Amino acid sequence: MEKDRLSQIVDFCQLIDREKFIQRRTFLTDGERLENDSEHAWHMAVMALLLSEYSNQEVDVLKVVSILLVHDLVEIYAGDTFAYDEEGKKSQRERELAAADRLYSQLPSDLAARFHSLWDEFEAAQTPESRFAHTLDNFQPLMLQHASHGRAWREGGRKLSEVLERNAQSAKGSKILWEYAQNNFIQPEIDAGNLMDDSAK
Amino acid sequence: MEKDRLSQIVDFCQLIDREKFIQRRTFLTDGERLENDSEHAWHMAVMALLLSEYSNQEVDVLKVVSILLVHDLVEIYAGDTFAYDEEGKKSQRERELAAADRLYSQLPSDLAARFHSLWDEFEAAQTPESRFAHTLDNFQPLMLQHASHGRAWREGGRKLSEVLERNAQSAKGSKILWEYAQNNFIQPEIDAGNLMDDSAK
Repeated sequence: MEKDRLSQIVDFCQLIDREKFIQRRTFLTDGERLENDSEHAWHMAVMALLLSEYSNQEVDVLKVVSILLVHDLVEIYAGDTFAYDEEGKKSQRERELAAADRLYSQLPSDLAARFHSLWDEFEAAQTPESRFAHTLDNFQPLMLQHASHGRAWREGGRKLSEVLERNAQSAKGSKILWEYAQNNFIQPEIDAGNLMDDSAK
Repeated sequence: MEKDRLSQIVDFCQLIDREKFIQRRTFLTDGERLENDSEHAWHMAVMALLLSEYSNQEVDVLKVVSILLVHDLVEIYAGDTFAYDEEGKKSQRERELAAADRLYSQLPSDLAARFHSLWDEFEAAQTPESRFAHTLDNFQPLMLQHASHGRAWREGGRKLSEVLERNAQSAKGSKILWEYAQNNFIQPEIDAGNLMDDSAK
Protein backbone atom coordinates (compact mmCIF):
# COMPACT_ATOMS: atom_id res chain seq x y z
CA MET A 1 0.00 0.00 0.00
CA GLU A 2 3.08 2.23 0.34
CA LYS A 3 2.84 3.09 -3.35
CA ASP A 4 -0.76 4.25 -3.10
CA ARG A 5 0.02 6.52 -0.17
CA LEU A 6 2.93 8.13 -2.01
CA SER A 7 0.89 8.66 -5.18
CA GLN A 8 -1.83 10.31 -3.16
CA ILE A 9 0.65 12.71 -1.55
CA VAL A 10 2.37 13.51 -4.84
CA ASP A 11 -0.96 14.20 -6.54
CA PHE A 12 -1.71 16.67 -3.76
CA CYS A 13 1.72 18.27 -4.23
CA GLN A 14 0.89 18.74 -7.89
CA LEU A 15 -2.56 20.14 -7.12
CA ILE A 16 -1.23 22.88 -4.85
CA ASP A 17 0.76 24.32 -7.76
CA ARG A 18 -2.50 26.25 -8.32
CA GLU A 19 -1.67 28.48 -5.36
CA LYS A 20 0.81 30.23 -7.68
CA PHE A 21 -2.10 31.47 -9.78
CA ILE A 22 -4.02 33.11 -6.94
CA GLN A 23 -3.36 36.81 -7.08
CA ARG A 24 -3.31 39.06 -4.05
CA ARG A 25 -3.90 42.82 -3.94
CA THR A 26 -0.41 43.81 -2.86
CA PHE A 27 2.23 45.01 -5.29
CA LEU A 28 5.73 43.57 -5.13
CA THR A 29 8.63 45.91 -4.39
CA ASP A 30 8.88 46.80 -8.07
CA GLY A 31 5.47 48.46 -7.74
CA GLU A 32 4.36 46.81 -10.99
CA ARG A 33 3.30 43.25 -10.45
CA LEU A 34 0.82 41.89 -7.89
CA GLU A 35 1.96 39.18 -5.52
CA ASN A 36 0.52 35.67 -5.62
CA ASP A 37 -0.34 33.46 -2.66
CA SER A 38 2.69 31.17 -2.95
CA GLU A 39 5.11 34.11 -3.08
CA HIS A 40 3.40 35.61 -0.04
CA ALA A 41 3.68 32.33 1.88
CA TRP A 42 7.35 31.88 0.99
CA HIS A 43 8.18 35.42 2.00
CA MET A 44 6.49 35.11 5.37
CA ALA A 45 8.06 31.73 6.07
CA VAL A 46 11.55 33.19 5.59
CA MET A 47 10.54 36.18 7.70
CA ALA A 48 9.43 33.80 10.46
CA LEU A 49 12.95 32.32 10.47
CA LEU A 50 14.37 35.83 10.87
CA LEU A 51 11.84 37.55 13.12
CA SER A 52 10.53 34.96 15.57
CA GLU A 53 12.60 36.50 18.35
CA TYR A 54 10.14 39.42 18.23
CA SER A 55 7.09 37.29 19.00
CA ASN A 56 5.41 38.32 22.26
CA GLN A 57 5.60 34.73 23.42
CA GLU A 58 8.18 32.06 22.66
CA VAL A 59 7.17 30.06 19.59
CA ASP A 60 7.89 26.71 18.00
CA VAL A 61 9.36 28.01 14.74
CA LEU A 62 8.55 24.90 12.72
CA LYS A 63 4.93 25.30 13.74
CA VAL A 64 4.89 28.98 12.73
CA VAL A 65 6.55 28.22 9.39
CA SER A 66 4.23 25.30 8.71
CA ILE A 67 1.15 27.41 9.45
CA LEU A 68 2.39 30.17 7.16
CA LEU A 69 3.28 27.77 4.33
CA VAL A 70 -0.15 26.14 4.23
CA HIS A 71 -2.64 28.66 5.62
CA ASP A 72 -3.74 29.98 2.22
CA LEU A 73 -4.13 26.59 0.51
CA VAL A 74 -7.90 26.71 1.04
CA GLU A 75 -7.98 29.57 -1.46
CA ILE A 76 -7.29 27.04 -4.22
CA TYR A 77 -10.99 26.21 -3.92
CA ALA A 78 -12.36 29.22 -2.01
CA GLY A 79 -10.53 31.98 -3.89
CA ASP A 80 -8.79 34.94 -2.29
CA THR A 81 -11.01 37.18 -0.22
CA PHE A 82 -9.78 40.75 -0.38
CA ALA A 83 -9.14 42.12 3.11
CA TYR A 84 -11.33 45.13 2.39
CA ASP A 85 -14.18 43.25 0.68
CA GLU A 86 -16.88 43.38 3.38
CA GLU A 87 -19.42 41.39 1.34
CA GLY A 88 -16.91 38.67 0.47
CA LYS A 89 -15.81 38.40 4.07
CA LYS A 90 -19.33 37.50 5.19
CA SER A 91 -19.28 34.22 3.27
CA GLN A 92 -15.53 33.68 3.63
CA ARG A 93 -15.58 31.38 6.64
CA GLU A 94 -18.21 29.09 5.15
CA ARG A 95 -16.52 28.94 1.75
CA GLU A 96 -13.14 28.26 3.28
CA LEU A 97 -14.42 25.52 5.58
CA ALA A 98 -15.91 23.68 2.62
CA ALA A 99 -12.69 24.26 0.68
CA ALA A 100 -10.55 22.89 3.52
CA ASP A 101 -12.61 19.71 3.72
CA ARG A 102 -12.47 19.21 -0.03
CA LEU A 103 -8.76 19.96 -0.23
CA TYR A 104 -7.38 18.04 2.68
CA SER A 105 -9.55 14.96 2.12
CA GLN A 106 -7.29 14.33 -0.87
CA LEU A 107 -4.39 13.53 1.48
CA PRO A 108 -3.88 10.30 3.44
CA SER A 109 -5.88 10.70 6.65
CA ASP A 110 -2.97 11.32 9.02
CA LEU A 111 -1.58 14.12 6.82
CA ALA A 112 -5.07 15.47 6.16
CA ALA A 113 -5.61 15.77 9.90
CA ARG A 114 -2.23 17.43 10.40
CA PHE A 115 -2.74 20.01 7.63
CA HIS A 116 -6.35 20.67 8.60
CA SER A 117 -5.25 21.22 12.16
CA LEU A 118 -2.57 23.74 11.09
CA TRP A 119 -5.25 25.69 9.28
CA ASP A 120 -7.70 25.39 12.21
CA GLU A 121 -5.01 26.65 14.56
CA PHE A 122 -4.37 29.65 12.31
CA GLU A 123 -8.07 30.44 12.06
CA ALA A 124 -8.64 30.17 15.81
CA ALA A 125 -5.63 32.39 16.56
CA GLN A 126 -5.41 31.21 20.17
CA THR A 127 -1.83 29.85 20.31
CA PRO A 128 1.43 31.85 20.37
CA GLU A 129 2.35 30.35 16.98
CA SER A 130 -0.92 31.23 15.26
CA ARG A 131 -0.95 34.71 16.76
CA PHE A 132 2.55 35.38 15.53
CA ALA A 133 1.63 33.93 12.12
CA HIS A 134 -1.28 36.40 11.93
CA THR A 135 1.06 39.26 12.80
CA LEU A 136 3.41 38.28 9.97
CA ASP A 137 0.43 37.82 7.64
CA ASN A 138 -0.30 41.52 8.25
CA PHE A 139 3.26 42.79 8.58
CA GLN A 140 4.50 41.42 5.26
CA PRO A 141 1.90 43.18 3.07
CA LEU A 142 2.39 46.41 5.05
CA MET A 143 6.10 46.16 4.27
CA LEU A 144 5.33 45.66 0.57
CA GLN A 145 2.79 48.50 0.57
CA HIS A 146 5.43 50.88 1.80
CA ALA A 147 8.10 49.49 -0.56
CA SER A 148 5.75 49.96 -3.51
CA HIS A 149 5.06 53.54 -2.40
CA GLY A 150 1.53 52.83 -1.22
CA ARG A 151 0.30 52.20 -4.76
CA ALA A 152 -2.47 49.75 -3.84
CA TRP A 153 -3.65 52.01 -1.01
CA ARG A 154 -3.62 55.09 -3.20
CA GLU A 155 -5.41 53.43 -6.12
CA GLY A 156 -7.92 51.77 -3.77
CA GLY A 157 -8.58 55.01 -1.86
CA ARG A 158 -7.87 53.23 1.42
CA LYS A 159 -8.33 54.90 4.78
CA LEU A 160 -6.24 54.55 7.92
CA SER A 161 -9.27 53.28 9.85
CA GLU A 162 -9.56 50.33 7.46
CA VAL A 163 -5.88 49.48 7.83
CA LEU A 164 -6.12 49.73 11.61
CA GLU A 165 -9.20 47.52 11.67
CA ARG A 166 -7.46 44.88 9.59
CA ASN A 167 -4.55 45.08 12.03
CA ALA A 168 -6.67 45.03 15.17
CA GLN A 169 -5.01 41.80 16.33
CA SER A 170 -1.47 42.46 15.04
CA ALA A 171 -0.08 43.49 18.44
CA LYS A 172 -1.26 40.20 19.93
CA GLY A 173 1.46 38.30 18.11
CA SER A 174 4.19 40.92 18.34
CA LYS A 175 3.92 44.34 19.89
CA ILE A 176 7.36 45.20 18.54
CA LEU A 177 6.54 44.34 14.92
CA TRP A 178 3.20 46.11 15.03
CA GLU A 179 4.83 49.25 16.43
CA TYR A 180 7.54 49.01 13.79
CA ALA A 181 4.92 48.71 11.05
CA GLN A 182 3.00 51.73 12.31
CA ASN A 183 6.10 53.92 12.40
CA ASN A 184 7.89 52.68 9.31
CA PHE A 185 5.23 51.47 6.88
CA ILE A 186 1.93 53.16 7.70
CA GLN A 187 2.88 56.66 8.91
CA PRO A 188 5.20 57.41 5.95
CA GLU A 189 2.38 56.55 3.52
CA ILE A 190 0.02 58.85 5.41
CA ASP A 191 2.67 61.58 5.22
CA ALA A 192 3.09 60.96 1.50
CA GLY A 193 -0.66 61.21 0.94
CA ASN A 194 -1.09 57.61 -0.18
CA LEU A 195 -3.20 56.57 2.78
CA MET A 196 -6.00 58.79 4.00
CA ASP A 197 -5.87 59.63 7.70
CA ASP A 198 -9.55 59.66 8.69
CA SER A 199 -8.83 59.46 12.41
CA ALA A 200 -8.00 63.09 13.17
CA LYS A 201 -10.59 65.74 13.79
CA MET B 1 20.28 49.01 19.83
CA GLU B 2 17.23 46.77 19.52
CA LYS B 3 15.78 49.10 16.89
CA ASP B 4 18.87 48.94 14.72
CA ARG B 5 18.88 45.18 14.74
CA LEU B 6 15.22 45.03 13.79
CA SER B 7 15.62 47.58 10.98
CA GLN B 8 18.52 45.60 9.61
CA ILE B 9 16.46 42.40 9.55
CA VAL B 10 13.42 44.10 8.02
CA ASP B 11 15.55 45.70 5.31
CA PHE B 12 16.81 42.22 4.47
CA CYS B 13 13.23 40.91 4.39
CA GLN B 14 12.40 43.62 1.90
CA LEU B 15 15.49 42.91 -0.20
CA ILE B 16 14.65 39.25 -0.67
CA ASP B 17 11.40 40.22 -2.40
CA ARG B 18 13.66 40.17 -5.48
CA GLU B 19 13.66 36.39 -5.42
CA LYS B 20 10.15 36.60 -6.91
CA PHE B 21 11.63 38.09 -10.08
CA ILE B 22 14.14 35.31 -10.74
CA GLN B 23 12.71 33.08 -13.40
CA ARG B 24 13.42 29.38 -13.65
CA ARG B 25 13.18 27.18 -16.73
CA THR B 26 10.33 25.00 -15.56
CA PHE B 27 6.74 25.61 -16.59
CA LEU B 28 4.00 25.60 -13.98
CA THR B 29 1.23 23.03 -14.25
CA ASP B 30 -0.67 25.30 -16.64
CA GLY B 31 2.16 24.75 -19.14
CA GLU B 32 2.14 28.48 -19.92
CA ARG B 33 4.09 30.42 -17.32
CA LEU B 34 7.61 29.79 -16.02
CA GLU B 35 8.13 29.34 -12.31
CA ASN B 36 10.11 31.81 -10.23
CA ASP B 37 12.54 31.04 -7.41
CA SER B 38 10.21 31.99 -4.56
CA GLU B 39 7.37 29.83 -5.92
CA HIS B 40 9.81 26.94 -6.29
CA ALA B 41 11.03 27.36 -2.70
CA TRP B 42 7.50 27.54 -1.29
CA HIS B 43 6.41 24.47 -3.22
CA MET B 44 9.36 22.40 -2.00
CA ALA B 45 8.95 23.55 1.58
CA VAL B 46 5.35 22.32 1.64
CA MET B 47 6.47 19.11 -0.07
CA ALA B 48 9.07 18.64 2.68
CA LEU B 49 6.26 18.78 5.25
CA LEU B 50 4.42 16.07 3.33
CA LEU B 51 7.21 13.83 2.07
CA SER B 52 9.92 13.76 4.73
CA GLU B 53 8.89 10.25 5.74
CA TYR B 54 10.41 9.12 2.43
CA SER B 55 13.88 10.43 3.20
CA ASN B 56 16.48 7.65 3.32
CA GLN B 57 17.53 8.87 6.75
CA GLU B 58 15.49 10.49 9.47
CA VAL B 59 15.57 14.28 9.11
CA ASP B 60 14.99 17.37 11.21
CA VAL B 61 12.07 18.78 9.22
CA LEU B 62 12.64 22.40 10.31
CA LYS B 63 16.21 22.12 9.02
CA VAL B 64 15.04 20.73 5.67
CA VAL B 65 12.37 23.39 5.30
CA SER B 66 14.79 26.18 6.29
CA ILE B 67 17.37 25.00 3.76
CA LEU B 68 14.74 24.85 1.03
CA LEU B 69 13.33 28.28 1.85
CA VAL B 70 16.69 30.05 1.66
CA HIS B 71 18.94 27.97 -0.61
CA ASP B 72 18.26 30.06 -3.73
CA LEU B 73 18.62 33.50 -2.11
CA VAL B 74 22.16 33.81 -3.47
CA GLU B 75 20.62 34.04 -6.93
CA ILE B 76 19.43 37.55 -6.03
CA TYR B 77 23.00 38.59 -6.77
CA ALA B 78 24.38 35.60 -8.71
CA GLY B 79 21.40 35.02 -11.01
CA ASP B 80 19.89 31.65 -11.82
CA THR B 81 22.23 29.18 -13.45
CA PHE B 82 20.31 26.91 -15.79
CA ALA B 83 20.88 23.26 -14.86
CA TYR B 84 21.91 22.46 -18.44
CA ASP B 85 24.15 25.49 -18.98
CA GLU B 86 27.61 23.90 -18.85
CA GLU B 87 29.48 27.20 -19.33
CA GLY B 88 27.48 28.98 -16.64
CA LYS B 89 27.99 26.12 -14.23
CA LYS B 90 31.79 26.55 -14.41
CA SER B 91 31.64 29.98 -12.79
CA GLN B 92 28.54 29.24 -10.69
CA ARG B 93 30.30 28.28 -7.45
CA GLU B 94 32.52 31.37 -7.47
CA ARG B 95 29.66 33.74 -8.33
CA GLU B 96 27.41 32.25 -5.69
CA LEU B 97 30.07 32.38 -2.96
CA ALA B 98 30.58 36.09 -3.59
CA ALA B 99 26.81 36.57 -3.68
CA ALA B 100 26.33 34.74 -0.37
CA ASP B 101 28.93 36.92 1.36
CA ARG B 102 27.39 40.08 -0.03
CA LEU B 103 23.85 39.03 0.78
CA TYR B 104 24.22 37.62 4.26
CA SER B 105 26.54 40.36 5.48
CA GLN B 106 23.44 42.59 5.42
CA LEU B 107 21.98 40.63 8.35
CA PRO B 108 23.01 40.93 12.02
CA SER B 109 26.02 38.64 12.45
CA ASP B 110 24.25 35.82 14.30
CA LEU B 111 21.53 35.55 11.64
CA ALA B 112 24.09 36.00 8.86
CA ALA B 113 26.01 33.03 10.23
CA ARG B 114 22.87 30.94 10.55
CA PHE B 115 21.66 31.64 7.02
CA HIS B 116 25.13 31.25 5.51
CA SER B 117 25.47 27.94 7.28
CA LEU B 118 22.13 26.69 5.90
CA TRP B 119 23.39 27.48 2.40
CA ASP B 120 26.80 25.91 3.06
CA GLU B 121 25.09 22.79 4.34
CA PHE B 122 22.97 22.59 1.20
CA GLU B 123 25.99 23.09 -1.05
CA ALA B 124 28.10 20.47 0.75
CA ALA B 125 25.25 17.93 0.64
CA GLN B 126 26.74 15.80 3.40
CA THR B 127 23.92 15.74 5.96
CA PRO B 128 20.62 13.82 5.78
CA GLU B 129 18.75 17.15 5.66
CA SER B 130 20.76 18.65 2.80
CA ARG B 131 20.67 15.38 0.84
CA PHE B 132 16.91 15.22 1.16
CA ALA B 133 16.65 18.91 0.22
CA HIS B 134 18.63 18.18 -2.96
CA THR B 135 16.31 15.31 -3.80
CA LEU B 136 13.29 17.59 -3.47
CA ASP B 137 15.08 20.29 -5.46
CA ASN B 138 15.20 17.76 -8.31
CA PHE B 139 11.90 15.99 -7.68
CA GLN B 140 9.74 19.13 -7.74
CA PRO B 141 10.80 20.31 -11.25
CA LEU B 142 10.49 16.75 -12.56
CA MET B 143 6.92 16.72 -11.26
CA LEU B 144 6.19 20.04 -12.98
CA GLN B 145 7.89 18.89 -16.20
CA HIS B 146 5.53 15.95 -16.38
CA ALA B 147 2.49 18.02 -15.36
CA SER B 148 3.29 20.53 -18.13
CA HIS B 149 3.59 17.67 -20.64
CA GLY B 150 7.37 17.93 -20.95
CA ARG B 151 7.16 21.29 -22.67
CA ALA B 152 10.53 22.63 -21.46
CA TRP B 153 12.25 19.35 -22.30
CA ARG B 154 10.67 19.18 -25.75
CA GLU B 155 11.42 22.81 -26.59
CA GLY B 156 14.97 22.51 -25.20
CA GLY B 157 15.68 19.26 -27.05
CA ARG B 158 16.71 17.63 -23.77
CA LYS B 159 18.14 14.12 -23.60
CA LEU B 160 17.62 11.47 -20.95
CA SER B 161 21.37 11.36 -20.26
CA GLU B 162 21.27 15.04 -19.25
CA VAL B 163 18.33 14.49 -16.92
CA LEU B 164 20.03 11.46 -15.36
CA GLU B 165 23.26 13.37 -14.87
CA ARG B 166 21.42 16.19 -13.15
CA ASN B 167 19.77 13.59 -10.93
CA ALA B 168 22.95 11.63 -10.21
CA GLN B 169 22.61 12.31 -6.47
CA SER B 170 18.80 12.19 -6.20
CA ALA B 171 18.73 8.66 -4.77
CA LYS B 172 21.07 9.72 -1.97
CA GLY B 173 18.32 11.70 -0.31
CA SER B 174 15.42 9.39 -1.11
CA LYS B 175 15.58 6.18 -3.11
CA ILE B 176 11.80 5.99 -3.02
CA LEU B 177 11.22 9.48 -4.47
CA TRP B 178 13.86 9.03 -7.15
CA GLU B 179 12.33 5.71 -8.21
CA TYR B 180 8.90 7.35 -8.22
CA ALA B 181 10.18 10.20 -10.40
CA GLN B 182 11.76 7.82 -12.89
CA ASN B 183 8.59 5.77 -13.27
CA ASN B 184 6.00 8.53 -13.10
CA PHE B 185 7.63 11.71 -14.42
CA ILE B 186 10.54 10.75 -16.68
CA GLN B 187 9.44 7.54 -18.40
CA PRO B 188 6.03 8.89 -19.48
CA GLU B 189 7.74 11.86 -21.15
CA ILE B 190 10.12 9.51 -22.97
CA ASP B 191 7.12 7.46 -24.08
CA ALA B 192 5.35 10.63 -25.26
CA GLY B 193 8.41 11.71 -27.27
CA ASN B 194 9.10 14.84 -25.19
CA LEU B 195 12.43 13.60 -23.78
CA MET B 196 14.93 11.91 -26.06
CA ASP B 197 16.12 8.52 -24.81
CA ASP B 198 19.80 8.51 -25.85
CA SER B 199 20.67 5.58 -23.58
CA ALA B 200 19.41 2.66 -25.66
CA LYS B 201 21.36 1.05 -28.47
